[in-house]
Amino acid sequence: MADADAITELVNQLTRLPGVGEKTATRLAFFLVEAPPDLSRALGEAILSAPGRIRRCRDCGTLTERDPCRICANPSRDGGTVCVVEATPDIAAVERTAEFGGVYHVLHGLIRPLDGVGPDDLNLASLLRRVSSGVVREVIVATNPSVEGEATAMYIRGLLGPQGVRVSRIASGLPVGGELEYADRATLGRAIAARVVL
Amino acid sequence: MADADAITELVNQLTRLPGVGEKTATRLAFFLVEAPPDLSRALGEAILSAPGRIRRCRDCGTLTERDPCRICANPSRDGGTVCVVEATPDIAAVERTAEFGGVYHVLHGLIRPLDGVGPDDLNLASLLRRVSSGVVREVIVATNPSVEGEATAMYIRGLLGPQGVRVSRIASGLPVGGELEYADRATLGRAIAARVVL
Repeated sequence: MADADAITELVNQLTRLPGVGEKTATRLAFFLVEAPPDLSRALGEAILSAPGRIRRCRDCGTLTERDPCRICANPSRDGGTVCVVEATPDIAAVERTAEFGGVYHVLHGLIRPLDGVGPDDLNLASLLRRVSSGVVREVIVATNPSVEGEATAMYIRGLLGPQGVRVSRIASGLPVGGELEYADRATLGRAIAARVVL
Repeated sequence: MADADAITELVNQLTRLPGVGEKTATRLAFFLVEAPPDLSRALGEAILSAPGRIRRCRDCGTLTERDPCRICANPSRDGGTVCVVEATPDIAAVERTAEFGGVYHVLHGLIRPLDGVGPDDLNLASLLRRVSSGVVREVIVATNPSVEGEATAMYIRGLLGPQGVRVSRIASGLPVGGELEYADRATLGRAIAARVVL
C-alpha cells in the first residue's frame, strides 16, 4: 500500500473476520474510509457496544439482551417441547417456518472430535437439567444433517434417553420444489429410507 | 431473530457494507458478539478512527495519512511519468510489479454516464494542473480494460493531448500463464490486434 497506516490497521482488523481475506478487507477498508462519516461511526459503535449488551439466556443459552430471553419468558410458548439448535441464528430459521410453538436450546457448537470439540464444550449440562426438571416431554434435535450434526443428535439421544423423554430429529429428504434428477445420492437415499405412508 | 436488539442493530449496520447481505451480516454479527473482546474492540476502534486520519494527497489524490503522500514526497520517484489509476488500492497492484518508478494520480472513479458520473466528478482538474506545470513527460492510463475504463482513458487523451504530453495506455491481452483455448473473444481479439514484432 502506498502510504496509509490507519488503512493498514483497518485492513488487518477486518481480516480477522471469518471469510474475509486481504482483498475483501482492503475493499471494505477503502469503502469505510470514503463512506459518509455517519456510516462508519454507526458501524464502529455497533461493533463496540453489541458484545457488552449481549449475554446467554440462563435457560436456553440464546444470545440475547434480556435474560431470560423473549421466547423463554413468553408464557404462550410450550415449555414441554424443546428444539435443540447449534447456534442462535438457527432459531430465526425455525421461527420463520411458523411450525414450532415450543422453546429452544442453543448448543453453541456441535461435537467435532477432529477439532477437539467434545460434549463438555457444548451447552448440554443445562439441557440435561431442563429435562430432569420433568416439564419437558419432547426434545427435537434440529442440528444440520451433517456428520457432526448427526453425531451430536446421537449423543443427545444417549444423554436424554434414560430420562424418559422423547428425543426426535428433524426429517432429511428432498427440499420442497427440488428435483429428483438433481438430488445428491445421500439426500435421495435418506428420502427413500424415511418415506412416509400416504 | 429471537430477541436481540443490539444484534439486529449490528446486522443492519453490517449490511451497509458492499457485498455484505443479510446472511453474511448475521454470521459476522454473531462472530463479533462471541469473539474475544479485544477483537471487536480493535475492529470497532479502527473503523471509528481511520476515516478521520485519512485524507487525499494534495498532489495525486491518494488516500493517505501524510500529505503529500509517501510516493509524491519521495525524491527518487520520477515525477515526469504519471500513472493514472481509478482508486488508491490500484497503486498497490502497480507497485507490486516493481515495473514503475514514477508517480501516481488517483481519479477516485471512472466516467460512468449511466450512473451520472461525469468527468467533473473525477480528480481530473488536478491532473491537468500537474501536466500543465511542464514537468510531466508521459501519462500512463492504468484504468481497467472495461468499457468505463476505456472511455475514461479516451477522455484523458482528449484532455491532455493539447498539452503536448505523451498519453499511453497499459496493454491488454492474454494473461501470463493463460491459455488461448480459454481466453474470451474480446481478450484474444485485443491480443491479436496489439501483437508485437519479435
